Amino acid sequence: MSDAALHSDLSVGETAALFADVRGRTAKLVEPLNPEDMVLQSMTDASPVKWHLAHTTWFFEEFILRPRVANYASPDDRFAFLFNSYYVQAGPRHARDKRGMISRPTVADVAAYRAHVEDAIATLLVSNREDLDEIATLVELGCHHEMQHQELLVTDLLHALSYNSLMPAYRDPEPMPVTAAPDLAFNRHDGGLVEIGYSGDGFAYDCEQPRHKTYVAPFQMANRPVTNREWIAFMDDGGYGNDPLWLMDGIARARAEDWQHPLYWWQQDGEWWTFTLRGAQPVNLDAPVVHVSYYEAEAFARWAGARLPTEAEWETAHAATPIEGNFLDNANLRPLPGTGVWGDVWEWTGSAFLPYPGFQPPQGAIGEYNGKFMVNQFVLRGGSCATPKAQMRHSYRTFFYPHQRWQMLGLRLAKDG
Amino acid sequence: MSDAALHSDLSVGETAALFADVRGRTAKLVEPLNPEDMVLQSMTDASPVKWHLAHTTWFFEEFILRPRVANYASPDDRFAFLFNSYYVQAGPRHARDKRGMISRPTVADVAAYRAHVEDAIATLLVSNREDLDEIATLVELGCHHEMQHQELLVTDLLHALSYNSLMPAYRDPEPMPVTAAPDLAFNRHDGGLVEIGYSGDGFAYDCEQPRHKTYVAPFQMANRPVTNREWIAFMDDGGYGNDPLWLMDGIARARAEDWQHPLYWWQQDGEWWTFTLRGAQPVNLDAPVVHVSYYEAEAFARWAGARLPTEAEWETAHAATPIEGNFLDNANLRPLPGTGVWGDVWEWTGSAFLPYPGFQPPQGAIGEYNGKFMVNQFVLRGGSCATPKAQMRHSYRTFFYPHQRWQMLGLRLAKDG
Amino acid sequence: MSDAALHSDLSVGETAALFADVRGRTAKLVEPLNPEDMVLQSMTDASPVKWHLAHTTWFFEEFILRPRVANYASPDDRFAFLFNSYYVQAGPRHARDKRGMISRPTVADVAAYRAHVEDAIATLLVSNREDLDEIATLVELGCHHEMQHQELLVTDLLHALSYNSLMPAYRDPEPMPVTAAPDLAFNRHDGGLVEIGYSGDGFAYDCEQPRHKTYVAPFQMANRPVTNREWIAFMDDGGYGNDPLWLMDGIARARAEDWQHPLYWWQQDGEWWTFTLRGAQPVNLDAPVVHVSYYEAEAFARWAGARLPTEAEWETAHAATPIEGNFLDNANLRPLPGTGVWGDVWEWTGSAFLPYPGFQPPQGAIGEYNGKFMVNQFVLRGGSCATPKAQMRHSYRTFFYPHQRWQMLGLRLAKDG
Amino acid sequence: MSDAALHSDLSVGETAALFADVRGRTAKLVEPLNPEDMVLQSMTDASPVKWHLAHTTWFFEEFILRPRVANYASPDDRFAFLFNSYYVQAGPRHARDKRGMISRPTVADVAAYRAHVEDAIATLLVSNREDLDEIATLVELGCHHEMQHQELLVTDLLHALSYNSLMPAYRDPEPMPVTAAPDLAFNRHDGGLVEIGYSGDGFAYDCEQPRHKTYVAPFQMANRPVTNREWIAFMDDGGYGNDPLWLMDGIARARAEDWQHPLYWWQQDGEWWTFTLRGAQPVNLDAPVVHVSYYEAEAFARWAGARLPTEAEWETAHAATPIEGNFLDNANLRPLPGTGVWGDVWEWTGSAFLPYPGFQPPQGAIGEYNGKFMVNQFVLRGGSCATPKAQMRHSYRTFFYPHQRWQMLGLRLAKDG
Repeated sequence: MSDAALHSDLSVGETAALFADVRGRTAKLVEPLNPEDMVLQSMTDASPVKWHLAHTTWFFEEFILRPRVANYASPDDRFAFLFNSYYVQAGPRHARDKRGMISRPTVADVAAYRAHVEDAIATLLVSNREDLDEIATLVELGCHHEMQHQELLVTDLLHALSYNSLMPAYRDPEPMPVTAAPDLAFNRHDGGLVEIGYSGDGFAYDCEQPRHKTYVAPFQMANRPVTNREWIAFMDDGGYGNDPLWLMDGIARARAEDWQHPLYWWQQDGEWWTFTLRGAQPVNLDAPVVHVSYYEAEAFARWAGARLPTEAEWETAHAATPIEGNFLDNANLRPLPGTGVWGDVWEWTGSAFLPYPGFQPPQGAIGEYNGKFMVNQFVLRGGSCATPKAQMRHSYRTFFYPHQRWQMLGLRLAKDG
Repeated sequence: MSDAALHSDLSVGETAALFADVRGRTAKLVEPLNPEDMVLQSMTDASPVKWHLAHTTWFFEEFILRPRVANYASPDDRFAFLFNSYYVQAGPRHARDKRGMISRPTVADVAAYRAHVEDAIATLLVSNREDLDEIATLVELGCHHEMQHQELLVTDLLHALSYNSLMPAYRDPEPMPVTAAPDLAFNRHDGGLVEIGYSGDGFAYDCEQPRHKTYVAPFQMANRPVTNREWIAFMDDGGYGNDPLWLMDGIARARAEDWQHPLYWWQQDGEWWTFTLRGAQPVNLDAPVVHVSYYEAEAFARWAGARLPTEAEWETAHAATPIEGNFLDNANLRPLPGTGVWGDVWEWTGSAFLPYPGFQPPQGAIGEYNGKFMVNQFVLRGGSCATPKAQMRHSYRTFFYPHQRWQMLGLRLAKDG
Repeated sequence: MSDAALHSDLSVGETAALFADVRGRTAKLVEPLNPEDMVLQSMTDASPVKWHLAHTTWFFEEFILRPRVANYASPDDRFAFLFNSYYVQAGPRHARDKRGMISRPTVADVAAYRAHVEDAIATLLVSNREDLDEIATLVELGCHHEMQHQELLVTDLLHALSYNSLMPAYRDPEPMPVTAAPDLAFNRHDGGLVEIGYSGDGFAYDCEQPRHKTYVAPFQMANRPVTNREWIAFMDDGGYGNDPLWLMDGIARARAEDWQHPLYWWQQDGEWWTFTLRGAQPVNLDAPVVHVSYYEAEAFARWAGARLPTEAEWETAHAATPIEGNFLDNANLRPLPGTGVWGDVWEWTGSAFLPYPGFQPPQGAIGEYNGKFMVNQFVLRGGSCATPKAQMRHSYRTFFYPHQRWQMLGLRLAKDG
Repeated sequence: MSDAALHSDLSVGETAALFADVRGRTAKLVEPLNPEDMVLQSMTDASPVKWHLAHTTWFFEEFILRPRVANYASPDDRFAFLFNSYYVQAGPRHARDKRGMISRPTVADVAAYRAHVEDAIATLLVSNREDLDEIATLVELGCHHEMQHQELLVTDLLHALSYNSLMPAYRDPEPMPVTAAPDLAFNRHDGGLVEIGYSGDGFAYDCEQPRHKTYVAPFQMANRPVTNREWIAFMDDGGYGNDPLWLMDGIARARAEDWQHPLYWWQQDGEWWTFTLRGAQPVNLDAPVVHVSYYEAEAFARWAGARLPTEAEWETAHAATPIEGNFLDNANLRPLPGTGVWGDVWEWTGSAFLPYPGFQPPQGAIGEYNGKFMVNQFVLRGGSCATPKAQMRHSYRTFFYPHQRWQMLGLRLAKDG
């Protein structure tokens, strides 16, 4: 992000509170886990829980403590090699697909590493250094970075646990509230020459900026995400085998991986079940569908006589809608049935993840944060039940490859106006 | 394309002339080849010459003769299975990566197949059927389809021949005219709320439509494509090994395939050479660079302190520039040195290939023409020395995956205004 | 082979006659083919017909003409690169999996290359050089080498044609003689301390030597190969899905490639059909089963309460049995129904292809002929309907990987005595 | 093994003592490990430590407790699915390459599982059941099975830890005794009609039987394994790049994986280092080379003007040599420098792993123990510093694929007599 982008509207004290809060929430997330759970890496796209714990810590060390604190001593300088993710300007890295081989440092060692860095950052934030504002801004960035990893931590864990036929639950199952989904309706929007992108004083990533003009033709937007009931109708109508509904690359992927339903689903005695962070659960027909790829979402929309919204449409249509989802903080970790708002599942848009006009990444390794992923991925908007609420905002752009499914990914329909 | 889109402004007689002309040009293209040359398939992305000859013929048979001519008899009904490409609504297909296994029908058999279908179409076009206008419109589509395959035919052939260490020349080498490239300059454009997309009465594909409004911020556009001289400067500056210039997916691909220069290049006695349709040739420093992927083009642009244009910028900036390239019809088959116009090499844009607002594909299998490729690919604009001139227009969108290089792919720089 | 092994009992004149005969037979084999047929390469294990034509010619050039004929001029020195197969001491080679990309030299060019080398060899054999005996011995080796490639030529061709749904026939179908297979019987052999390996004055490969002692326990050998009728009984009994019958590596391969029957088989209206060099044919129940891998053969034998013979058992048991098969020279190119002898199908043994005690390969590149393949392969004995009769002998060891099926591979059962 | 083979010469009491001893040694092996270490799976060939702990326990449950103890209750019946390895007759299994995904049951759960089964077996062995002898024989088999897994446990662990750039040591480094290797010498053996295979009253696997006659030509056997000093001479002489020394499949594998030295080696300041169970260590020039594949060993032997021994030669030559190696029980876990006996490293033979004449596997799932691996693997003889001494005997045949290197694999040279 540009220097402007790195400006924060938080006071240093507020930043310190945010830091304590975010770090504490991470620690709370892993409380139910055994050390064995924390080293699993189920695929290259996913990372072990322990790696998330260490990587988010390394981020503060690499971009704040090392460059700014004289005589800062890391518990182990080699952690920088193990826990860098993709920052090429921050030096060489441990191979991404071998993160599950790192049994040591142990979970206890990593906890000590976290405490060490937390102390150093906390100390820094109560100093009276000249560069305290800059430091606070970087700490805030580190907190948002860690919030992103909180979501990945639980979704990566879900993926790893899904290979275990014992179907272990991350958290004890709780009864799901019974709520009917509202009837599907489309709201009309005029479009026109609008502005999208972040413009406030708070935190936002470089890729959400600059706020810029774009032209949007009249369109209609659904009042809620697509539900499991609707998805099952698509399945029952032969949607997965109906090639003309699908993009060519989607057909190839669906065939190669034999997709017949969303990830983690199976059928048992005529009923659909799904594996969740609360273990095996019956599919709730009124809840938003989740764990579907862009290919599936795009085909579903065509089947439904609709299409995916663009991100400009999404941002315009939701500009006045506050978030009311089912947040990580609420600890439910499943999309809520009957939801009519946003924040329960990420919503695929039909927009490729590309730079906004005038996009300028910040200088240095921090500038690699988003820009180097701007190819082959699609934007999702909103946020999911695994997203910390503090991380959600109207301009937020997350992005995944069109074949990916292990995140909390769903969709909302749109139509031409 | 919508029904409107299938309207043609050619008379039936003009269509018949176009048909004769296009079919004749295809035949001329393969004159220098042996039967052995015509069955080679060097990768899944490429097809044998003979397959192009048959597939373009099958297109007329499948979409015109079979549905509209009572008692039409194909030389062999099984050709439909062998020579369908990807039209899922037109039935099952021969595996795409096994097209090089089809030694029979032989080249002679395919020539007879071509003659058979040409007779039938010619007969149809001089009939006085009620649906003659519809037929003529479909014939025109078939001609444009065949022109696309003319370009693929020669580029696929180049790829296949490149595996032969004898470096066989498709055509005899001719001396390349000596012309210096004009100095690089950027022309400023105001942008604003503009319209792009095809709007005339002539032929255009569904994906070029509808003409629609879009907002473009002020920008600058280079006066010519990037040259080989500039590309070598990038190479000499370590561009291929400078990770921060590259997209992450680009680094992965470049590493996996050990990219150090454009496709078909090698160094010999301190000079760069390249394999072309005229055999081995020294790289002409003043000619546009060609056979570079999106990943390479995007990294080059960053290195040059610029970026790739969007397709709206490209179309706006070129709206008043006539084509003056080096066309397939001119038979040179190499980008011309010193070119300052468009039509010598395709130019990568930074725009993903996605539907225009309001896009409507036509009904039926014809509707699969472009729509089902609208994911994971980037748009190129312009046209190349392998493109028939009749196929070039300002609104034309071709598209390739960001790693592909075997087509005549180059780039032109742009900047924010 | 050792120098002794390279001794030949043919006179120079007989060698010249063998040379003319073998070269002529190769030319005859390709008469029914089009140029397009001759460039197909369907997998890395197989080579194009044209490559076989050129490689067998290169062998004479590389090992006789170049080292021994002053001023010998090849039509193109670069052919050595294109048509070397695996002789590492003979220099670098064209990538094996890209042989199907070599459209030029054309079939006509290769015919001229063949004629050029044939003239040179014929001239050499009527000279009165001092090293004429050595030359004749090498020519004889080249003839046997070419006979091996005659078999590969037709089996590789069959594999390539099998990808064509038109099911083209290499030769016109002829009615298959109707003969019932003899009843299965086992002949008992005493074994003991026996000798195997080649010991005569004629031609034999290095790997058939030295003749050596080996101890064989009493055993029983079937009177004929396993028939298609017996194989179908195995299939009908669920043999392909009965894991305990199979080796672990066999299960993995059979699952990965979905083996349910021999290669080239399919079921049609309740009857089994197979693709052959004479096109589609009903499976003849009395003919030996062919196109089965070692894994399948080994599992079948276990199902049948028997086992595969060792090569010592095979050679001992067949020592007194003359060849009476259905040879390539007879041009039938299908195993004959009712055969009770050997020479119709290669017979898998349970012996790994390893050096005989005291094995010594000859010096130089010729020494790479067999020795470097002595790992991971199993020996087959006998010979097939695609094997030239002059190439068959009791001590002959051919070898393939246990998963390979595209050669004319069958089996004969054995039991402990 | 046949029923006879399952006869044991141990009394029931001795079997109970063996059981207690073996189970205790396994527990001791994992004492230095953290839970995180115990779930790592670094490749399909290797399994997590925890899996070994559970699988060896499952073996007693599956083949003894379930079939023979009425009302036996497992801690979790689903463990049978998770911890079966390859016994197809024992039901479906967890995918082998996903064993590293099983975080639960935890290490503590598995320890409880072990205790549960140990109690049940111990109780059984002090009962006065009629089938007590049969049970004791099966318990003895289970103990030998567990000893095999003790070796795999530490070698699999080494492989997993090798991916960690922190180079964690399984055990604290101890100084290596300084001993010079004896000079290389070859001892001549007459061979003749000999007998090999197990014939005593103790425990032996089915594949070591029956003892049988075989003919061995005169040969010479080296007095000790090949040392690291000799291996470095091979490397320095360009052995890894000298294609004519290598088998074709070996060249392909060495190229694909860029082999330039044994597994786990690297060069640092001109000296060779290696990663061991005691962490990074300098390569001891007098110690036997270890972690070399069959391909490397076979090429080395050719370079040295020798060859690998057959297993008949090995067994004959060592018949009178007692084991004096460096055993797992001694806890050194590195081949000892200066060793002139056997038992420090497994020694590759040139014999494929195939059934002995008259081989009969036992009935049922136990019969899958060795027989189903009799393809594509080579026999090694002796034993390594990771092998429990009680498992070593002259007739023991272990086997690995020719490309595998992660076990303690070395070689001893032989020559024709």
